[in-house]
Amino acid sequence: MPSRPTPPPGEFLYLLAADQEDFLAACEDLLPADIAEGLNDLPTEAGVRVLAALPFDLAVQVVDESLLEKRDHLFEQLPDHVAIPLIQAMSADQQVGLFRELRESDRARLLHVLDAPTRNQLKLLMSYPRQSAGGLMTTEFVSVPDTWTALDVRLHVAREGSGKETVYAIYVHDQEQRLERVLSLREVVMADSQTLVTRIGDGRKPVTVGPTVDREEVARTISKYNLLAIPVVDDVNHVLGIVTVDDVIDALVSEQTEDVQKFGGMAAIEESYLDIGFLRMVRKRAGWLSALFLGEMLTATAMGHFEHEISRAVVLALFIPLIISSGGNSGSQATSLIIRALALNEVTLADWWRVAVRELPAGLTLGGILGVIGLIRVETWQRFGWYDYGPHHGLVALTVALALIGVVLFGSLAGSMLPFVLRRAGFDPASASAPFVATLVDVTGLIIYFTVGYIVLRGTLL
Amino acid sequence: MPSRPTPPPGEFLYLLAADQEDFLAACEDLLPADIAEGLNDLPTEAGVRVLAALPFDLAVQVVDESLLEKRDHLFEQLPDHVAIPLIQAMSADQQVGLFRELRESDRARLLHVLDAPTRNQLKLLMSYPRQSAGGLMTTEFVSVPDTWTALDVRLHVAREGSGKETVYAIYVHDQEQRLERVLSLREVVMADSQTLVTRIGDGRKPVTVGPTVDREEVARTISKYNLLAIPVVDDVNHVLGIVTVDDVIDALVSEQTEDVQKFGGMAAIEESYLDIGFLRMVRKRAGWLSALFLGEMLTATAMGHFEHEISRAVVLALFIPLIISSGGNSGSQATSLIIRALALNEVTLADWWRVAVRELPAGLTLGGILGVIGLIRVETWQRFGWYDYGPHHGLVALTVALALIGVVLFGSLAGSMLPFVLRRAGFDPASASAPFVATLVDVTGLIIYFTVGYIVLRGTLL
Repeated sequence: MPSRPTPPPGEFLYLLAADQEDFLAACEDLLPADIAEGLNDLPTEAGVRVLAALPFDLAVQVVDESLLEKRDHLFEQLPDHVAIPLIQAMSADQQVGLFRELRESDRARLLHVLDAPTRNQLKLLMSYPRQSAGGLMTTEFVSVPDTWTALDVRLHVAREGSGKETVYAIYVHDQEQRLERVLSLREVVMADSQTLVTRIGDGRKPVTVGPTVDREEVARTISKYNLLAIPVVDDVNHVLGIVTVDDVIDALVSEQTEDVQKFGGMAAIEESYLDIGFLRMVRKRAGWLSALFLGEMLTATAMGHFEHEISRAVVLALFIPLIISSGGNSGSQATSLIIRALALNEVTLADWWRVAVRELPAGLTLGGILGVIGLIRVETWQRFGWYDYGPHHGLVALTVALALIGVVLFGSLAGSMLPFVLRRAGFDPASASAPFVATLVDVTGLIIYFTVGYIVLRGTLL
Repeated sequence: MPSRPTPPPGEFLYLLAADQEDFLAACEDLLPADIAEGLNDLPTEAGVRVLAALPFDLAVQVVDESLLEKRDHLFEQLPDHVAIPLIQAMSADQQVGLFRELRESDRARLLHVLDAPTRNQLKLLMSYPRQSAGGLMTTEFVSVPDTWTALDVRLHVAREGSGKETVYAIYVHDQEQRLERVLSLREVVMADSQTLVTRIGDGRKPVTVGPTVDREEVARTISKYNLLAIPVVDDVNHVLGIVTVDDVIDALVSEQTEDVQKFGGMAAIEESYLDIGFLRMVRKRAGWLSALFLGEMLTATAMGHFEHEISRAVVLALFIPLIISSGGNSGSQATSLIIRALALNEVTLADWWRVAVRELPAGLTLGGILGVIGLIRVETWQRFGWYDYGPHHGLVALTVALALIGVVLFGSLAGSMLPFVLRRAGFDPASASAPFVATLVDVTGLIIYFTVGYIVLRGTLL
């Protein structure tokens, strides 16, 4: 366990009610993230009182924490003379986050009382899509002209550093404000005082992203090049803002949650499980569940076509769940492999046929393994008298084994191709959820099973 | 798209074969991560030639890249006079990574020729579990005594900074080498030259982790406090090493891959999809698939008990796939929600009953919705003559509807409780894969369905 405990919920409130001084003393040893977490457990009115009682600098850090939930509710209730200075002191990316959460009416009201530069910047940043580099970026970065020396930069950082999101990446621009190179503070600290910034570092072209690049791509780039921040530039290489590594981690964690939930077959839920309203949660789940149910109804239709066969050979019905679930399982394996490979860029759209060429023998092998197990299962039960599959038990076992090979092969192919089809059609491949694949494979699985049965058992059972 | 293209595979090799000078010129504008990615696409022998031809400093950065695959194969083939200096110049955490990958024989051989300090440190670091803070940490950090001034630290960083993993977090220790506080380089640069380090910063207790803390917990702590690095300390607060944010991102991405694959019902695969050997991939998939298949065999046993009912009312068989898959889908939704909530600490083990209390009405509501749709389906088909469910179609529809409520309720409860059970038993809750839950729910779903059928249809169809 990490050594910093989270304050027990309510501690703040208790201290605040008891004695203002005790309260401030208690806060002194807490980090902003701890206070934010503590606030999450308090009712809004109590949170508002805590925020108003905190020293201003600490309050700014607390509202700047992305893990602070219901920030919008807090700001809706804070008096303007507390709220406005806090908002103006927040970092630009968190301002944007807050204004996106606020109700329309509060947004208009608060925007109106902000000073003009903050307001204009906010409007600009909010014009970018929420999950893009532009929507994640902040505008407080260190930018210096290419005529400066290392000493100039050090003095600048010492003077202006406190207002910047990060001072560890320093952006050098030319006379037309175009990004020329990116230095690390380490390089600047290690350089001789009189060295020109254009002579520091390795002089390689900086890694940048455009404002419309998706957050997953931003995360991938930051992580690939081990950056602490990445500049977001326009067409002519002006730096619009920077995305820092901590925002990327937050984005990765949200993306992960979204992927797991999508893969579990439901709409993504941003709120935490115990906080989300009951009706909202049911709605998020009912949509997908009903859609899958409607798809799965095709199995009833398919089964209807085989009612005659089932009534003649009830023994066939016994293996239906076993066979269709094997198809679903192999499909879910294949789809999870390919979703991840696509997300990590290990596989691109153009590789679909390479994947198909691998899944074909993989599906046959896996189906063969299950087929043999299935064959042994039927014959063993028959031999030891644990169940009587009738006089044609050998043919029944053969039907089960052949159907398993066909169904698992189909499951592997369908499961691996579906993410490609989804991405090609412009959807997130992660929507190829396990339940979706299973539904797709169930209907086909039944048709494969009964077709195999018809061929093998014709003239005997059927 | 980010502005840095990856070099086309083979470019290196082509240039290297053509002209050594062209090759080095081409490498000059590439970042180490790009070169590492380029190497991933080359056969090992060619990669070895490229590594040996690169300028030493650049080669060190390349082998220090965690995205370099098959690093072990490269080092197995590199001549010792190239390999040894490279290893000694790598950062400690990447040395550990490399030695964990190497074959036993190569590991012993290379360990033997390393200098004693490197060897001893490596042995110590390798004694920590791979996915723990100790297994991720590096030992190149900036540590200064509490008697120094800001200027002392700045000079120290300027002198020694290049050999450190990060210089942005500075660890201040007392006379007994115990960690006293952590400063950021920003604070040090902004402080007056003569200020003592003990008077810089806010003086709050540093955030630390123990060496055995799991990497997910390390990632959570770094991300919560927006740190660039976290110190790993022993019982008496000596700093053993630090884990940096880029390692945490790598860990998060691996964890994400592992979770998606586990959730898809297979053993985690570290290699990229197109690189892993065919047999190895099939083995990873066959294990889980066979286990699920053996579990699913219980459905055949359960169905066997109802063979008599099926032969009397074949119409019941038609809805088997529809009903059991609905249970699987609702279970998979619930389990994905709870896995994520547990991973994010939104829900703890002690909250299991809160979850159960939410899933009970949620399962009933969702089951009710599907039940109504199912009822309408059967009656509509009957009414319009699209299918004939016999004279007791109303009772059949009722059976389907009631079974759906029961199965979805059971699926939601089982799916939400399984992650708790797994964590309680010491397993990763993410092992509660969609296929695992579906298998669990299938058997019970059949029993619920036929029991409901027996009650509703007794005296008519049965």
